[in-house]
Amino acid sequence: MYRVVIDVMGSDAGPATMVKGAALALDKYEELSLLLVGDEGAIRSAADECGMDMSRVEILHADEVVTNYDSPAAALFTKPRSSLVLALSALADRDDLVGMINAGSTGALIAGAMRYLPLETRVRPALAATLPAERGGFVCIVDTGATVDCNAETLLHFARLGTEFMRDMYGNPSPKVGLLSNGKEETKGCKAVKEAHALLASAEDINFVGNMEGTNALSGECEVLVCDGFAGNQVLKVTEGTARRIITDIVKIAKKEGKAEYMELVGRLMAMYDFNSLGGGIILGVRKPVIKAHGASNEQSIMNIAGMILNLAVKKEAYAGRT
Amino acid sequence: MYRVVIDVMGSDAGPATMVKGAALALDKYEELSLLLVGDEGAIRSAADECGMDMSRVEILHADEVVTNYDSPAAALFTKPRSSLVLALSALADRDDLVGMINAGSTGALIAGAMRYLPLETRVRPALAATLPAERGGFVCIVDTGATVDCNAETLLHFARLGTEFMRDMYGNPSPKVGLLSNGKEETKGCKAVKEAHALLASAEDINFVGNMEGTNALSGECEVLVCDGFAGNQVLKVTEGTARRIITDIVKIAKKEGKAEYMELVGRLMAMYDFNSLGGGIILGVRKPVIKAHGASNEQSIMNIAGMILNLAVKKEAYAGRT
Repeated sequence: MYRVVIDVMGSDAGPATMVKGAALALDKYEELSLLLVGDEGAIRSAADECGMDMSRVEILHADEVVTNYDSPAAALFTKPRSSLVLALSALADRDDLVGMINAGSTGALIAGAMRYLPLETRVRPALAATLPAERGGFVCIVDTGATVDCNAETLLHFARLGTEFMRDMYGNPSPKVGLLSNGKEETKGCKAVKEAHALLASAEDINFVGNMEGTNALSGECEVLVCDGFAGNQVLKVTEGTARRIITDIVKIAKKEGKAEYMELVGRLMAMYDFNSLGGGIILGVRKPVIKAHGASNEQSIMNIAGMILNLAVKKEAYAGRT
Repeated sequence: MYRVVIDVMGSDAGPATMVKGAALALDKYEELSLLLVGDEGAIRSAADECGMDMSRVEILHADEVVTNYDSPAAALFTKPRSSLVLALSALADRDDLVGMINAGSTGALIAGAMRYLPLETRVRPALAATLPAERGGFVCIVDTGATVDCNAETLLHFARLGTEFMRDMYGNPSPKVGLLSNGKEETKGCKAVKEAHALLASAEDINFVGNMEGTNALSGECEVLVCDGFAGNQVLKVTEGTARRIITDIVKIAKKEGKAEYMELVGRLMAMYDFNSLGGGIILGVRKPVIKAHGASNEQSIMNIAGMILNLAVKKEAYAGRT
């Protein structure tokens, strides 16, 4: 049995959606149990409504909520009884808890995870995202926005975090690492990227395959895409925005010209390019998986993310057992 | 009559494609004349082949070519008789020449344009791209790769260059300027972007509309998207890569399932998202429009770019006449 912590507060959709997602996850994954943190009344009422199997659920009541209006760094201190702080403390203290989901303030979650669960001190945080690669499999983008000003050493560190994550998550012993740049040649890139190229090329623990351009960043030529949080945020959001735009174009054509057959295609493309439902941002460099779900996550996304943490816990255990 | 310079050498497709594109442009635009620079034999033979109207064509022979293997900065000095240097010198010296097209080394073209046609000295170069906006109209991305390390002052300068270009090109007296960041809030962004936000907000000659995220960078909420060349390169290439990926997905579905009706849609999407044919990178901050066509440009692209320079020359004259 693996117990996952879900902070049900702070999401745009409200605690009921988080609880319903939790119920779906319990139905789907037999070896999953949960610690739900938040307003106990709201949790019990949503759980009743969806007929949740309470035998595998523990509730931890919290009477404060960290919101997007709170200063991320200050919130941990000004709201000590918030669901975020209680959830992170529990995750840090209890060995039976394997990971955590939160759909609230990204900044506060990152600050909290770095405070309660640091792997190393003085290391810059990374918020990774795994997106489906064009050739199949997944690409882990490190970083997507946690650390926007990076030097070469931070980029090397991100390469190591991404390598470790892809090894734990997919059992790939030596994932290919690419460095996002504005050209394939090693002479291309901003100052930090050019320096990072040299560091990555000589790092023996990294399977470095060279620079990646935006056109093939998610092709699958690399499984870990190393970039500062500013550029990585663009890769993530421009991909999302372009997919949404093209799908909208097809809907417009279908409606205007009455082409019903195009709407079936739209449904399939939406399923392929709905990155939100695939999992959220993963905080790397902390002791246990902490996943930031999209603020607008639906029940399905929460269920998928719980499955992702479960998978990671199982794989990590298997990996630890082998070594 | 407006005379445009075309450096026919250095492209992947070879001089014949450049000359054929030139011939198409002469057919389409009556008030266009050309100065073709490059190997005279190759130009005359390609011109013969496509029956080019030579009454509006002047040829300037060059017996050297700058290639992608040359160091961009050094090439201007080591190859003084190259088509690139002769074309830029002519453009700088002759009042009848209104702009220039080149499909060779981007670095050498930028270095050359900054050397022969500087508007101001000590200003960092920008290579802009105009892409169709989701809501209609165009978005000018400044910069897409010429200056990858930018401070806040350079970003402010890019905002001014983009504003001026959109005014000249589309007659828009006060184009909306957005600043690419990793969040809408002014507190988001890397150091240079946060500082640039403050500069842009207080610049009276800029119609600043705030930060843009990757998801809506090309929506049309702004007409000038200000960014450093590293992040701007990602916006351009990730958009291109995602469009290519989705179109490829549709082709695969169509072929696998024998859905011929989807192939008609593919053709339309390719026309909408083939950004190469729309024009190339525009070097801003120089005295006359210099446009870098994609290395793999076809005849159609060259024709479109010639039309773009012509349009810019006409608009600039009209604008100068009004003021």
